[in-house]
Amino acid sequence: MRKIFRELVSVEEAKRRLFDKIKIEPKVEEVPLIEACGRILAEDYYSGVDVPPFDRATMDGYAVRAEDTFGAEEDDPVALRVVGKVEAGEVPNVEVKRGTAVEISTGALIPKGANAVVMVEYTSREKDTVFIYRPVPPGTNIMSAGSDIMAGELLVRRGTRLTPREIGVLASAGFGSVRVVRKPVVAVISTGNELVSPGERLEFGKIYDVNAYAIGAGVIENGGVPIFLGIARDDADEIRSKIAEGLKIADIVVLSGGTSSGVGDMIYRVIEEFGEILVHGIAVKPGKPTVIAVANGKPIFGLPGYPTSALMIFEIFVVPLIRQMAGISERESKTVEARVPFKVFSAIGRREFLPVNLVEGRDGLIAYPFTDYSGAISTLAEADGFIEIPESKVFLEEGEVVEVKLFGDIKPADLMIIGSHCVGIDVLLEVLRRRKAIQAKVINVGSTGGIMAIKRGEADIAGTHLLDEETGEYNIPYLYRYGLKGEAVLVKGYIREQGFIVAKGNPKDIKGFEDLLRNDVTFVNRNPGSGTRVLLDIHLKRIAEERGISFEEIKRKIKGYDVEAKSHTAVAVAVLMGKADVGLGIKTVAERYGLDFIPVRPEEYDFVIRKDRLCKEAVKSFLEVLKSEEFRKELERKLPGIRVTERTGEIVEI
Amino acid sequence: MRKIFRELVSVEEAKRRLFDKIKIEPKVEEVPLIEACGRILAEDYYSGVDVPPFDRATMDGYAVRAEDTFGAEEDDPVALRVVGKVEAGEVPNVEVKRGTAVEISTGALIPKGANAVVMVEYTSREKDTVFIYRPVPPGTNIMSAGSDIMAGELLVRRGTRLTPREIGVLASAGFGSVRVVRKPVVAVISTGNELVSPGERLEFGKIYDVNAYAIGAGVIENGGVPIFLGIARDDADEIRSKIAEGLKIADIVVLSGGTSSGVGDMIYRVIEEFGEILVHGIAVKPGKPTVIAVANGKPIFGLPGYPTSALMIFEIFVVPLIRQMAGISERESKTVEARVPFKVFSAIGRREFLPVNLVEGRDGLIAYPFTDYSGAISTLAEADGFIEIPESKVFLEEGEVVEVKLFGDIKPADLMIIGSHCVGIDVLLEVLRRRKAIQAKVINVGSTGGIMAIKRGEADIAGTHLLDEETGEYNIPYLYRYGLKGEAVLVKGYIREQGFIVAKGNPKDIKGFEDLLRNDVTFVNRNPGSGTRVLLDIHLKRIAEERGISFEEIKRKIKGYDVEAKSHTAVAVAVLMGKADVGLGIKTVAERYGLDFIPVRPEEYDFVIRKDRLCKEAVKSFLEVLKSEEFRKELERKLPGIRVTERTGEIVEI
Repeated sequence: MRKIFRELVSVEEAKRRLFDKIKIEPKVEEVPLIEACGRILAEDYYSGVDVPPFDRATMDGYAVRAEDTFGAEEDDPVALRVVGKVEAGEVPNVEVKRGTAVEISTGALIPKGANAVVMVEYTSREKDTVFIYRPVPPGTNIMSAGSDIMAGELLVRRGTRLTPREIGVLASAGFGSVRVVRKPVVAVISTGNELVSPGERLEFGKIYDVNAYAIGAGVIENGGVPIFLGIARDDADEIRSKIAEGLKIADIVVLSGGTSSGVGDMIYRVIEEFGEILVHGIAVKPGKPTVIAVANGKPIFGLPGYPTSALMIFEIFVVPLIRQMAGISERESKTVEARVPFKVFSAIGRREFLPVNLVEGRDGLIAYPFTDYSGAISTLAEADGFIEIPESKVFLEEGEVVEVKLFGDIKPADLMIIGSHCVGIDVLLEVLRRRKAIQAKVINVGSTGGIMAIKRGEADIAGTHLLDEETGEYNIPYLYRYGLKGEAVLVKGYIREQGFIVAKGNPKDIKGFEDLLRNDVTFVNRNPGSGTRVLLDIHLKRIAEERGISFEEIKRKIKGYDVEAKSHTAVAVAVLMGKADVGLGIKTVAERYGLDFIPVRPEEYDFVIRKDRLCKEAVKSFLEVLKSEEFRKELERKLPGIRVTERTGEIVEI
Repeated sequence: MRKIFRELVSVEEAKRRLFDKIKIEPKVEEVPLIEACGRILAEDYYSGVDVPPFDRATMDGYAVRAEDTFGAEEDDPVALRVVGKVEAGEVPNVEVKRGTAVEISTGALIPKGANAVVMVEYTSREKDTVFIYRPVPPGTNIMSAGSDIMAGELLVRRGTRLTPREIGVLASAGFGSVRVVRKPVVAVISTGNELVSPGERLEFGKIYDVNAYAIGAGVIENGGVPIFLGIARDDADEIRSKIAEGLKIADIVVLSGGTSSGVGDMIYRVIEEFGEILVHGIAVKPGKPTVIAVANGKPIFGLPGYPTSALMIFEIFVVPLIRQMAGISERESKTVEARVPFKVFSAIGRREFLPVNLVEGRDGLIAYPFTDYSGAISTLAEADGFIEIPESKVFLEEGEVVEVKLFGDIKPADLMIIGSHCVGIDVLLEVLRRRKAIQAKVINVGSTGGIMAIKRGEADIAGTHLLDEETGEYNIPYLYRYGLKGEAVLVKGYIREQGFIVAKGNPKDIKGFEDLLRNDVTFVNRNPGSGTRVLLDIHLKRIAEERGISFEEIKRKIKGYDVEAKSHTAVAVAVLMGKADVGLGIKTVAERYGLDFIPVRPEEYDFVIRKDRLCKEAVKSFLEVLKSEEFRKELERKLPGIRVTERTGEIVEI
């Protein structure tokens, strides 16, 4: 018996139903002032005291009756008898009468009778007599009671987020604790037989629980307190008891999971037992199967199981609720305008929230949409934000301007490196990061992808190692081929030792490319467009020619030619884990994983940089580091198999 | 024996000496992933597993051999024998052989032999037989092992601030805890015999400790952990033992205090015992007497005692240090450009950091400088940021453009209300705040000050209650007088009952203005330009005329004519505390403090609004609330003595 969504409601309708039912009344708690930084003040705070609470000296000197100093001159000082001394914090037991003075420290209470303080710099002292060299009018160097803050004045308004400055003001009026908005408590429940908590052993067939952690962090980020009720099996009793516990201890209950419709229906029915279902199914992508209910005035959310879907729905529905309960104003939706780089199709009749990667293009930002993202977790880390495509829209045109809502606090990178994956770049960025706070974004799309990104103005720098079949030259022929003459320069990088990565001891006895054709050898390839793949294909074409067979045939002969790893590291891991016997990659990575390496040839790993980006601060810093002694040493120490040359950092105009 | 600063060093030189001596090596600690939100990752994290770790069904349906489905059509389905079922989290013990299928749930492991999943929507089931209505190519609805994240892939880079998204990615790879940068520990010590901790009873001659709280909050805000070592008396032994304790438990020691030079010298000498003094005296205002030292590689700061000075030096020197130790990039110095509204003089030979209040003027922001601020605590709460005036500059010209560094996260208000103080505005803003997240800034400068601020385009709204002597009309004559015709409108506000605020029982038997002239009566006045003061002066002039004496003479006769309270509330408190016998103010405030009230006349409290601000969202919302039933009721309930009329909210063009 499958439960069909009775109706898909729009995002607005779902929000209306939710906010109509849930009465948001921020609750209040009292916390010590010391712990109040960042909290939201729940009440207006008025001062109960004057600040300063008494007339106070603002200088070191002598408290006097101003009249007594009239007529004092540099060469004809007035002499006053010093009748006492008052330090800060003391209550003076002397009075300043005509002809007398009291020595006084900054911050001390002005003794009775005095109405001015003469700075010590304008006096000299001889035993009990002080000579005053300048006259002072009444009030000089005195901060009078209440002149800073008067008793009864409003100190800080309700709803203010307390920063060090408000904390200081509240301290000045003597508040040792303050009433702030209590952080809303959110019970977080993950459901699924397949889930295992991070840190535990992953049995076969299981996956790690992502949602509880990502949602929990999202609760914290938005001013709430998450309570993890753990993972519930796909079992009605277990889910029921966790929801019941959540409703007891929390203000909001958030479940996620139920990716299969059978489990989804079961969760729906359990939620229904507790209260009123407000929404079951939203016309949105991702996140259609979302359930929203209310029980005893508390909202219960049933989010989808896929992490990206769950977080998107969390962002749209749960975050505004948490923030309102926390007394925080709505998240400033940081938005930027960007263009989509190609035609993007959208779900008809559903609002689509599409994660994108922001890249600086020649005429502003480019929003690269993620495709097929809802099941993928890496989307979460890579996306800069998302675009909202209305229900009525079937597609976005190439170059269409869209508004991108940024996730959290991140911003487009200072330095955009798109191209071939190299661990040398990791070392370079580490040195760079030690020198400057530069946020670099590295997108590994292979050498050719990098050159295209340079051509389109999206990358600042592309790492590339493309061997030209005809000339035997690295990289430069490709720049001409892609029409980058005049638009970009080549910056010489370093030499990497390319070769075969094999298991320790080389059990399959791999000696050369011919061995890849063997029946007992499984290969792991790299993605098309990567320099490594180009190198492979050049050699395979050579062999094909020698043997008089087609390139296609050669490829078919290699077991694993179609298995593509996205990086050198992934190739090494495939070999390490026995998924493949051999892969092509760089020596550095083989050594890192304790694997054997059979060299093929040294290759030139260089950087392509757009000319118009050479003056960019981050690019300049990148080049400085590339040429630096520090980088050379780090490379030597960490990455045997990669070495700089005397040409490293040289700019080659093309 | 006074210690003279041997040399004042520049801000840059002081920073150089500090950062040369202090080796900043962020320390590392391991925290549960759940607690890692907002922390800075200390190491690069690579995935040790494939995500997903196995080939996984992305849909509910049947796992099949794709070849078996070839030829399936809507009206001619293929029949397969169902040999088992696999749910998410299970390890299937069946194999899919030719002609068979296995029922499968989303997220479940693809059983051996199967290479595609047919969605349940394209099947029908009869006992052990499933009918397939559509053919599927290999790979359909399968997410293959490692296709999201491959083992060996870089998950999150060192130095990344962890948001929910990175937390999710780390969870997906099974990290139950992560190594993050340890928060630097800052020992905070306040010194001074005059200090009392907030929350404790304030003895006469003492003041509350502000610095420990404001600095502690500043440490938190910048990613550190403050440890309060409490208040040290002005006693070398006590200070010595607190510094020793601080050096033992913390990474940084921050003292503040020593406002008098004697105490300052003593603190200097105690610090000197622990290590090397790097800086003693900085050419800066405020904060000249700052001491910076290093002991066992740990920095010790001796900050000034005045809160604003202490916080400014904290911001310039300590914050960058804390942030670097915390692995946080330098605070993005949020800056805005603004003009100074008048000529501003600066300290010659010293870098001046001048707190300012930002107000939106007609041609951009206006930065109102605070004067004489270092001793004042209210400066802290009111200032939006500060400007930096170079050593060489003697003054800023009127209208000169300056760069304002904003404090923390605040921004100029959505709504700028400058003018006469009224508790009715507090109620109005409360209603407004319940409706919308509007940040209102209220600057109380009296009615005339408000009209001037409107004239100069700095206020959106000014509250005003100015009685015209000649016509007996409120407010409008003043708008003409200040040339606001065509520039602003008057919006009718409410009626306030003005009168004398006296102690309970009216012990001095105040009946009218004549009583203020009595010898046994002490008055508390309001500031010039306030409507209340105008009202007072009109009556005093009348009396002067009647008696045939000068206005000046009348003023001299009133004890307390020169004592100015900044608000109605402050007037009431002055009466409550016995500082004055009588003040002029509104009934509402008298009632709030349980004081007696002798009515003088009802007055019209109206709002002046610039015409060009009428379309501003926040102003529209303000007017909506002013006319709302909700506001009327709140006013009635909370503020007897203030009442709306049928004209409230009416816009009067002038």
